[in-house]
Amino acid sequence: MAEPSGILIKGGKVVNEECSAISDVYIEHGKIVDVGLDLQVPDGVRVIDATDKLVIPGGIDTHTHMELEFMGTQAVDDFHIGTKAALAGGTTMILDFVIPQKGKSLLEAYDCWRKKADPKVCCDYSLHVAVTWWSDEDVFMLQDSELYAAFSHCKETGAIAQVHAENGDLIAEGAKKMLSLGITGPEGHALCRPEEVEAEATQRAITIAHAVNCPLYVVHVMSKSAAKVVSNARRDGRVVFGEPIAAGLGTDGTHCWHKDWGHAAGFVMGPPLRPDPSTPGYLMDLLANDDLSVTGTDNCTFSVCQKALGKDDFTKIPNGVNGVEDRMSVIWEKGVHSGKMDENRFVTVTSTNAAKIFNFYPQKGRIAKNSDADVVIWDPKMTRRISAQTHHQAVDYNIFEGMECHGVAVVTISRGKVVYEDGQLKVSAGHGRFIHRKPFSEFVYKRIRQRDKVEKPTAVIRKPYEGKVISV
Amino acid sequence: MAEPSGILIKGGKVVNEECSAISDVYIEHGKIVDVGLDLQVPDGVRVIDATDKLVIPGGIDTHTHMELEFMGTQAVDDFHIGTKAALAGGTTMILDFVIPQKGKSLLEAYDCWRKKADPKVCCDYSLHVAVTWWSDEDVFMLQDSELYAAFSHCKETGAIAQVHAENGDLIAEGAKKMLSLGITGPEGHALCRPEEVEAEATQRAITIAHAVNCPLYVVHVMSKSAAKVVSNARRDGRVVFGEPIAAGLGTDGTHCWHKDWGHAAGFVMGPPLRPDPSTPGYLMDLLANDDLSVTGTDNCTFSVCQKALGKDDFTKIPNGVNGVEDRMSVIWEKGVHSGKMDENRFVTVTSTNAAKIFNFYPQKGRIAKNSDADVVIWDPKMTRRISAQTHHQAVDYNIFEGMECHGVAVVTISRGKVVYEDGQLKVSAGHGRFIHRKPFSEFVYKRIRQRDKVEKPTAVIRKPYEGKVISV
Amino acid sequence: MAEPSGILIKGGKVVNEECSAISDVYIEHGKIVDVGLDLQVPDGVRVIDATDKLVIPGGIDTHTHMELEFMGTQAVDDFHIGTKAALAGGTTMILDFVIPQKGKSLLEAYDCWRKKADPKVCCDYSLHVAVTWWSDEDVFMLQDSELYAAFSHCKETGAIAQVHAENGDLIAEGAKKMLSLGITGPEGHALCRPEEVEAEATQRAITIAHAVNCPLYVVHVMSKSAAKVVSNARRDGRVVFGEPIAAGLGTDGTHCWHKDWGHAAGFVMGPPLRPDPSTPGYLMDLLANDDLSVTGTDNCTFSVCQKALGKDDFTKIPNGVNGVEDRMSVIWEKGVHSGKMDENRFVTVTSTNAAKIFNFYPQKGRIAKNSDADVVIWDPKMTRRISAQTHHQAVDYNIFEGMECHGVAVVTISRGKVVYEDGQLKVSAGHGRFIHRKPFSEFVYKRIRQRDKVEKPTAVIRKPYEGKVISV
Amino acid sequence: MAEPSGILIKGGKVVNEECSAISDVYIEHGKIVDVGLDLQVPDGVRVIDATDKLVIPGGIDTHTHMELEFMGTQAVDDFHIGTKAALAGGTTMILDFVIPQKGKSLLEAYDCWRKKADPKVCCDYSLHVAVTWWSDEDVFMLQDSELYAAFSHCKETGAIAQVHAENGDLIAEGAKKMLSLGITGPEGHALCRPEEVEAEATQRAITIAHAVNCPLYVVHVMSKSAAKVVSNARRDGRVVFGEPIAAGLGTDGTHCWHKDWGHAAGFVMGPPLRPDPSTPGYLMDLLANDDLSVTGTDNCTFSVCQKALGKDDFTKIPNGVNGVEDRMSVIWEKGVHSGKMDENRFVTVTSTNAAKIFNFYPQKGRIAKNSDADVVIWDPKMTRRISAQTHHQAVDYNIFEGMECHGVAVVTISRGKVVYEDGQLKVSAGHGRFIHRKPFSEFVYKRIRQRDKVEKPTAVIRKPYEGKVISV
Repeated sequence: MAEPSGILIKGGKVVNEECSAISDVYIEHGKIVDVGLDLQVPDGVRVIDATDKLVIPGGIDTHTHMELEFMGTQAVDDFHIGTKAALAGGTTMILDFVIPQKGKSLLEAYDCWRKKADPKVCCDYSLHVAVTWWSDEDVFMLQDSELYAAFSHCKETGAIAQVHAENGDLIAEGAKKMLSLGITGPEGHALCRPEEVEAEATQRAITIAHAVNCPLYVVHVMSKSAAKVVSNARRDGRVVFGEPIAAGLGTDGTHCWHKDWGHAAGFVMGPPLRPDPSTPGYLMDLLANDDLSVTGTDNCTFSVCQKALGKDDFTKIPNGVNGVEDRMSVIWEKGVHSGKMDENRFVTVTSTNAAKIFNFYPQKGRIAKNSDADVVIWDPKMTRRISAQTHHQAVDYNIFEGMECHGVAVVTISRGKVVYEDGQLKVSAGHGRFIHRKPFSEFVYKRIRQRDKVEKPTAVIRKPYEGKVISV
Repeated sequence: MAEPSGILIKGGKVVNEECSAISDVYIEHGKIVDVGLDLQVPDGVRVIDATDKLVIPGGIDTHTHMELEFMGTQAVDDFHIGTKAALAGGTTMILDFVIPQKGKSLLEAYDCWRKKADPKVCCDYSLHVAVTWWSDEDVFMLQDSELYAAFSHCKETGAIAQVHAENGDLIAEGAKKMLSLGITGPEGHALCRPEEVEAEATQRAITIAHAVNCPLYVVHVMSKSAAKVVSNARRDGRVVFGEPIAAGLGTDGTHCWHKDWGHAAGFVMGPPLRPDPSTPGYLMDLLANDDLSVTGTDNCTFSVCQKALGKDDFTKIPNGVNGVEDRMSVIWEKGVHSGKMDENRFVTVTSTNAAKIFNFYPQKGRIAKNSDADVVIWDPKMTRRISAQTHHQAVDYNIFEGMECHGVAVVTISRGKVVYEDGQLKVSAGHGRFIHRKPFSEFVYKRIRQRDKVEKPTAVIRKPYEGKVISV
Repeated sequence: MAEPSGILIKGGKVVNEECSAISDVYIEHGKIVDVGLDLQVPDGVRVIDATDKLVIPGGIDTHTHMELEFMGTQAVDDFHIGTKAALAGGTTMILDFVIPQKGKSLLEAYDCWRKKADPKVCCDYSLHVAVTWWSDEDVFMLQDSELYAAFSHCKETGAIAQVHAENGDLIAEGAKKMLSLGITGPEGHALCRPEEVEAEATQRAITIAHAVNCPLYVVHVMSKSAAKVVSNARRDGRVVFGEPIAAGLGTDGTHCWHKDWGHAAGFVMGPPLRPDPSTPGYLMDLLANDDLSVTGTDNCTFSVCQKALGKDDFTKIPNGVNGVEDRMSVIWEKGVHSGKMDENRFVTVTSTNAAKIFNFYPQKGRIAKNSDADVVIWDPKMTRRISAQTHHQAVDYNIFEGMECHGVAVVTISRGKVVYEDGQLKVSAGHGRFIHRKPFSEFVYKRIRQRDKVEKPTAVIRKPYEGKVISV
Repeated sequence: MAEPSGILIKGGKVVNEECSAISDVYIEHGKIVDVGLDLQVPDGVRVIDATDKLVIPGGIDTHTHMELEFMGTQAVDDFHIGTKAALAGGTTMILDFVIPQKGKSLLEAYDCWRKKADPKVCCDYSLHVAVTWWSDEDVFMLQDSELYAAFSHCKETGAIAQVHAENGDLIAEGAKKMLSLGITGPEGHALCRPEEVEAEATQRAITIAHAVNCPLYVVHVMSKSAAKVVSNARRDGRVVFGEPIAAGLGTDGTHCWHKDWGHAAGFVMGPPLRPDPSTPGYLMDLLANDDLSVTGTDNCTFSVCQKALGKDDFTKIPNGVNGVEDRMSVIWEKGVHSGKMDENRFVTVTSTNAAKIFNFYPQKGRIAKNSDADVVIWDPKMTRRISAQTHHQAVDYNIFEGMECHGVAVVTISRGKVVYEDGQLKVSAGHGRFIHRKPFSEFVYKRIRQRDKVEKPTAVIRKPYEGKVISV
């Protein structure tokens, strides 16, 4: 007789975006089969007791760069280790960025990424494709007319236009200036990219997107001023989504001034973590209030010996920080434990909104019949202390080192299989699948289409001008 | 054989807060029994075809004053006519305000309201209880210390503190001034209550509520500046909810300057509709963006001959406007048809959030198994033109006269019974029930409780001061 | 014996930026020789009674385009007629823009402008030089890196960087779109240049200027949102000056929707007058409050038969409006008569600040000993009605047609000579002189230099990194 | 032959609000007799070389409480020592607050203050009169209707309405709460008066003042949020002036958390210095930008042994800090040396605006012929370090202890007499005079009066309502 494949999660509080309720969850063949009180299930299925715990959709990290080749070296967390670490932290899906090399087509690059990732991933994943917004040599910024054209194209095809919003010209000038002043350390990285450079570029992208009536997604909103730009635009009715990241919500840029070079270099990423220590709390307030929509990590990890490529020149420090493993706990700690958001909003910003925006909802991002069985049992009363000593990522430091977090993923289920429990990972490379996505996400495009229909400007009906016309 | 009581709504697009999906909805004994594709139902149940239509939770009007005795007369829409009209427009529940008379206890007043309403109501209803914030003679404003005490009490008991935010002292002075300038018409009503008077009082109430860590609900947010105060407070993390009303979203205060006295008087309410014509669009943007949370009407209707009590003195015009019937269509037209919000947000602000805040979710405000069968079939493509000639309310004018609305309730089901279809009402007095509510709504109090726990200020640990102390 | 050249203005209230006082003003040889009570003057000097009138510095229009060749035709107000009209309105100096033709050097263009203007001008003048920010074919926008370089150069040379802030790429796309929708009339001009396009470009220029620590002057601030950007930047300490113009303060863009094509076309300028009718009052509030600093006109006048070049295509309507004659009265009416600013602020924004920013203060912009005798006797109680029938400009319409203004220039003195009184102009071409200006205006550069000194970023002092470095 | 009384200040840069210029200043009989280049003066006058130095109007401290009896003790700096210290720091006039005791009339209290001050003051002074806004027992707040009445009265009499803007009810509740939590130290003082309490009260006062069309002066603006309220009101055209104080511009409330009780208690004042360390820089930005108008100190000094009355209960710590001596240097350091404002703005905010608002300009606040000879020679290149060891005040600590200031008063002239030079004070009690002030300051009331004239609301002209009127 075949072993029953089912799992019954019993007695937990199921948390979805719109509400929480004590329910059992029954899983079979990678799917959630039923949700309800006192579910009757076949004999022999595994029963997991979730009393006093939360049962939440697995986290979705909207923004990773696994094993990225960048600035002369390669990110140490590859698709295997990176996704395993994700699972340990309660994240069951990542969206990674395809970064086409110069001269390569988008499709080739996409294929290349698939080939790297498919055999390695331990959780489901999907891909964004960057439109050459950085080269392997230097930052690069699209000009306005290019942006206009790109957004127009995105809208036609139903894609989600995303921007990394920083003014590259100003950064380049700023970097030159810092080096000329003898500032070669990591603080130079922050100093040459003041937050107004991010805010200005964000405003610009929103303005251009609005001219096209194209939805916009702003990756890694790092500063108070940029977040305010996004929030104000939303108040004005713009279809724009802001993505803060775990690093920005959990720590700040004062570390770039740390006396220990290695410590400081570990926090170098772009746009930089901001030296204003009130930034993380402010971003969390906006995330709680739906001014910001969704969370990623920009996980792109280089160990200290790699960071050291820039030991004499901050422009050569490979950019990137960790986050894929700790995002869920950091957001719970700073968002829910702090009282800024409730558990429902937590689920919304860690998975549901990502699934809606990127158009795989309710397949993911929801505990409901027929949804994928990517489920996490979350203990809101357990605590853990983050440390590079104990984390599962390959990188040799952790920007959240020492942070005590009150919420912990105790069991992670991916594709219907328990892959993490009792602190142990039980998953092998290739367990994850690529998730195909359709264009024209309803969540994003409904209002866009309606506006196209009703907001057409109209001409004034006039009698023709019949007066004199100067001859030229 | 007993006639099957069931109703099957077939093939519609079921719209809830979090998403929409084509589903059948099966109703029996006043409850939703199942939601899903191709539901199997008993023979003989009534089947309603909802193809190409939306199936939404019945509207909840958070703010009515049926048959209120006020300013020497009585509102003409009583609990019977008023709730019938509500059903015709797609609203299946109202929350009416108990206004205790001077010298009467809150409980007595509540009993009195129940006695009036129970035999008359055609849809379900519940009650708010006002804390003497106006007397039968004049507007009255609680002093700050009273507000502090009231909010503290609300918090202890898990109630939702609500405020009508206007500075009564300034209004009284303003009214005197207008009359002294010979301004006796309806425009005087608007002139003596400038919007900053509303904004200031809103700011004050929020500040006091925050001092108590008490949630706050601001009724009838009427002005851009007051709405901005609410929005900014939410950004700062305050647990505050703003309620715009149909009148404020659908029309404006320029009508108070209308040359016809009767027309102008019809728009007199407090706080006044604002003469700035960009107000409705602004409020709708904020409602779409979750800066404002929920919608009511402040429906309190006086016919023109009643309004005429103030024909020589605007301070004697009974305050109030219609809305209970047209709210759903007005919000659809200005909110959804305009492209400002999608159908899911429409449901959120017309029913779901009301049910959550006032703690009867998911009994109401949701199309789901076990929820009450208060369901509306909504045709987003049908249009109707609002007019006092055709409306079901008792009042003899309509502030939305002539407005063309693109969304129309075609079938209304209340407590599992079809009460409105083909333009006909089929319901009798007493069909509705009083809905009891529990304190400490999770939606409102979760964050409040957590903050009480984690935000306690702490003392600095110091050695005692051992220096000289002056003797006095 | 030589005829005494002196003029004694007796008994007026002399108004300067910092205060007003009843004083006589004695003028000789083009200069103010003394200011004080009961001045003793030589026999035979002309005495002008100014009792109950104000004696103010002659107005300075910071922004004109006399006889400009533009869009295939030439502005009808040349340096002669234009400056005469200026004097009639109380303006005694203009700053005109040198617009180098493609392929011409800045110096050649400057010489060309001097040659045109010197023999014609009836009042003093000076020149700005445009850095090819439009060509004779189309709008053109500097890229960010060019702006960075240009601002850097301005700062080195002590110039005042000015920007016409609009996003040219967006305008070009917008124009295409409007024409494709069949919108060919003047409203198309406004529709393709929404105000956020101006606000975005303003924000960008300010951000870049701040990166350089370069002062910035924003010409023709036309919209509420752009004005807010300037104001917020000033609050943040940016050295930025905003120039609203008479047109923007006195009328609005609703006229572009006028049913009469000629009327509508008369209001076409860039950036456009805004259709939001609350714009002029808002700009005036900010001007009164020193959020905006100074006023010009962008006077660039084309008669209706010239405007008619664009009768079938709004992109061919020569851009420009009148203002040089009426600016003083319009600002008095909307600013001082309305109670928004006092007479001292009026002087500040019509002359003093211009003189300070462009570095010819206190030669101009002040009634004081040794200042140039550019003086206006202003009657705050007289009224006049603006009309093309009576104005002194060559253009055949007036955007302020019909406006009643309460303040009127009754006597204008330029270079010590009465050039306008009793409604009569008495001045001949070439009476005016070119005013040379020095770089590094103290008013503008004092703070800039101090910041350069104290705001240098500094490096963190660290021990060298001695750990492992990956080899690549 | 009589000794010549004159003083010639030679070769300095005379700084006034509107500009700076190298000029001599000649003084005789307590007045400035002439200002100009190469002044010819009688033989034997004292000549002071001011080459490379600034010659500025003596500072005016708008807000002091000399020898105030408060909270059971008396401020240690009396009118003698306090005004001597003022002179040493470059301040030549103070405005002290008459605080009527319970049951005493305003006029009696005024007489009492005159009697105390006249024989002691070393510099000129004037008085404000408080309208019982605190009692000797506890804080006390006027209700709205009282505020309305008070503002109406102020306006009728041409006074400047001033408010100490804090919500007293909230403070009282907050204090109770802190004590109940066992927080008895100085941090409790800050914790029970969060800045939103100040912001709310500021907003309320501005709203009421605007309802009356009465100018308003907000004393000691201490927080970013209150300052923002003032700034926004000014943008909206309100006639409101905000007064930050030296303490708020030069230090912050983190000191209240200091481990040493005496140190912490020294910073206790109301409204509290704010714990947000970005506050001083923010307030200075707004002061530089004319969002805030003028500076005082709220100088009210209690030595540590007096502060110690509250050693076990922060509500018993006498409120107050020093500032009268150091204000000029602190503002120069944080405002001018930092590059936020120039020397002209420095003069404006340290003397000129005070003189204008309180209506003794140009008698004070200006270096000009006929002005009082209250003059300071200021060395912008000299530095000094603030310390209680070296200051001239009676209080035994200094909240600016250790601050290095780049600008120093090297010579102070009061009423035409050198009273401070070479670090030595040469002045005796009673040297100062009381300065009488007239109502209806032009600077404040010009716009107010004009608005009264032009902003009258008008009635709509209608035919009388002739329809039915309900009978009641």
